[in-house]
Amino acid sequence: MMSGWNIQASVAAKSTTNPIRAIVDTGKYKPNPEKALIPLSIGDPCVFGNLSVTQYVNQQLVNSINSDKYNGYPPSIGYPSARAAVAKFVQTPSSPLSADDIILASGASGAIEIALTALLNQGDNVLVPQPGFSLYECICKSKGFDLKHYNLIPSRSWEIDIDHLRSLIDTKTKAILINNPSNPCGSVYSKEHLQQILQVAEEYHLPIISDEIYAGMTWGGAEFIPIASLTTVVPVLSIGGIAKRFLVPGWRVGWIAIHDRNNVFDQIRKAIVSLSQLILGPNSLIQSVLPEILNTENPEIARFFNETNQTLEKHSRLTVESLSKIDGLNPISSSGTMYQMIGFDTSKFNGIEDDVVFMGKLLEEESVFVLPGTVFGMKNYFRIVFCAPNEKLQEAYTRIESFCNRHRKN
Amino acid sequence: MMSGWNIQASVAAKSTTNPIRAIVDTGKYKPNPEKALIPLSIGDPCVFGNLSVTQYVNQQLVNSINSDKYNGYPPSIGYPSARAAVAKFVQTPSSPLSADDIILASGASGAIEIALTALLNQGDNVLVPQPGFSLYECICKSKGFDLKHYNLIPSRSWEIDIDHLRSLIDTKTKAILINNPSNPCGSVYSKEHLQQILQVAEEYHLPIISDEIYAGMTWGGAEFIPIASLTTVVPVLSIGGIAKRFLVPGWRVGWIAIHDRNNVFDQIRKAIVSLSQLILGPNSLIQSVLPEILNTENPEIARFFNETNQTLEKHSRLTVESLSKIDGLNPISSSGTMYQMIGFDTSKFNGIEDDVVFMGKLLEEESVFVLPGTVFGMKNYFRIVFCAPNEKLQEAYTRIESFCNRHRKN
Ligand SMILES: Cc1ncc(COP(=O)(O)O)c(C=O)c1O
Ligand SMILES: Cc1ncc(COP(=O)(O)O)c(C=O)c1O
Repeated sequence: MMSGWNIQASVAAKSTTNPIRAIVDTGKYKPNPEKALIPLSIGDPCVFGNLSVTQYVNQQLVNSINSDKYNGYPPSIGYPSARAAVAKFVQTPSSPLSADDIILASGASGAIEIALTALLNQGDNVLVPQPGFSLYECICKSKGFDLKHYNLIPSRSWEIDIDHLRSLIDTKTKAILINNPSNPCGSVYSKEHLQQILQVAEEYHLPIISDEIYAGMTWGGAEFIPIASLTTVVPVLSIGGIAKRFLVPGWRVGWIAIHDRNNVFDQIRKAIVSLSQLILGPNSLIQSVLPEILNTENPEIARFFNETNQTLEKHSRLTVESLSKIDGLNPISSSGTMYQMIGFDTSKFNGIEDDVVFMGKLLEEESVFVLPGTVFGMKNYFRIVFCAPNEKLQEAYTRIESFCNRHRKN
Repeated sequence: MMSGWNIQASVAAKSTTNPIRAIVDTGKYKPNPEKALIPLSIGDPCVFGNLSVTQYVNQQLVNSINSDKYNGYPPSIGYPSARAAVAKFVQTPSSPLSADDIILASGASGAIEIALTALLNQGDNVLVPQPGFSLYECICKSKGFDLKHYNLIPSRSWEIDIDHLRSLIDTKTKAILINNPSNPCGSVYSKEHLQQILQVAEEYHLPIISDEIYAGMTWGGAEFIPIASLTTVVPVLSIGGIAKRFLVPGWRVGWIAIHDRNNVFDQIRKAIVSLSQLILGPNSLIQSVLPEILNTENPEIARFFNETNQTLEKHSRLTVESLSKIDGLNPISSSGTMYQMIGFDTSKFNGIEDDVVFMGKLLEEESVFVLPGTVFGMKNYFRIVFCAPNEKLQEAYTRIESFCNRHRKN
């Protein structure tokens, strides 16, 4: 280093760490060069090219581009027409919304960042699920917010341990964050369970941030219920976006829907609008097509959703069927999203102390890349993203089986 | 409000205020309903439709969409190909860059937010220009960073008052932020002036954040010189984007280029990468076309740049010519960007105490909307955005003239 220069990164920047990278990107494990890599690790449905946005959506976007009408700055909270479309898409008869209740953001990620920043001061805390999506932790650490993790119970399809949730609340708690349907669990909460959560929120007067980025990606009888549709009392910020259901995570459009029927969110509403002015919202072209692409009354869009869900359901079934017959693995079946958590009994295997070692050796020997549960706060599980084409999934599961057979204690 | 609920917005959110809105959006002044509104207020070249991105760029984007290859998550810092293209676009022979030196962000706004957050802790300060772009203040207040404003000198084409700059530095100063070419001034710094700034930075070992979003938008012999091209000692984060020069602010793609030839930015480099993971970068489709659209060797792109600059130069001339003949107004001619600051002598007018009243009455009587200098920290100036079509500009200036004649003391 050149003398005299002593440029330190800020505490905020140093505290911004991605738990996935910290655990997975150590460079310690490399795929087996003799076998083609099958990445079942990242939550991106586009990795293999088998799942793809409908051409209808692409065509709407091309029309917008050619109109030359959507190149300027939209309002920082988004075009009114785009917000009206989101309102219509997200609302239910019991939880009506108008364009004024919607703020667009740079992905659901940007929306979550804004929601947390609006509600929390440094030193305040938010209750988040464990296992849970690592971005919650990443944002909180970066901003100096505390997190308290409430447990999800694998044997109850990953429902929240309500007593545990309740026990974590203190005077610094500013919100309960839930994620339904859940990454990494693939669970979808019942009406009764959502009501239990609302009861806690109501009792302690805590607003809910509901990350519903996987809204509507469910199957096998599981129905997604927006938590805001079940309350007229608890204020809810529901987070959504087009990343997952429309298979376009790179497009970076998400939103916050403000459900507040008693004006207890007046300050928060203003706060969210102010915060949106810092980076001025998501891409204008994508905003301009939201009225077309969120129109579920359009048969083209409805067909696309159905097809995607059917494919995901098939892949989910294949995953559970293939992995449940492997001694030592315990897949907890999912009814939504594109994820599956698989429990893993260390006592049955030789030299595989935990899920991080499992992930590493599986990659090293079989070139199958899964994420260890530890990155979601759940030791001795691993998460599979089942978006890969059927044959690839089958190949991956065959490899996992031989891996387990090879390492099993006899 | 419903009893029991007491949901306060965070201090950060409450501190996030846009000075433009605070001063302009008071609802106090309305346009004259008898005259068509001519908005010369916001820094968006797309407002009137006369300036528009070249069809070549649109076509590249359509190709990308139809390829279905760019819908997934790019790396949070951006596609390597996009970053390589930015590196090539931004570098100079004396300040070479590689893809690794570039981080993409959600607009130059997002890039500035990341740069400041990487360098400053709460209570630290950054030196920013006055008059200057209001986002700097908006970000700093939101994050708890202090700003110290250094003066620009109107009579010296808005050069920095170097002595004043120097006098502001204290132990909490973490960076000097400059904006060249300047919003709102339209000034373009000479090599000599940039060297004076570098000298201060070198003496105090302060890194420079150089907001160069208007890079290359110059005319009349003024040449844009990236400050990083003039130093091998001072570390520079240069900020850029496609919003202005490509006439697509709604597309929301900006970048940070890390100029660091002595590894004094090692921590900052890591910090910027970490911070990019919070919202996962800008739209993938736009990223995918950066190699095409930043290719200035393409005659189509070169022609587009030239044409835009020629139009802006004509509009700039018209602005100075029209307004300098009005007694009481003093336009300070600009040689870049799309802005013009006009000094305003209150002693010559009746009942117009300051620039905010000037702006308000001009809107109310003539339906011409300009921004008062106060929103940039410069009382008794106003800023004109001269992107409107020639006829509209002429009409606006005629109206400003009759307004001034009507209110002039005799
Ligand atoms: C639960 C959850 N919330 C939010 C996000 C972020 O979504 P986006 O890509 O729209 O930022 C993800 C992405 O994986 C997610 O799994
Ligand atoms: C000096 C300056 N920097 C940055 C920006 C923000 O650019 P972007 O739209 O890419 O966020 C602007 C926009 O007006 C500006 O004038």
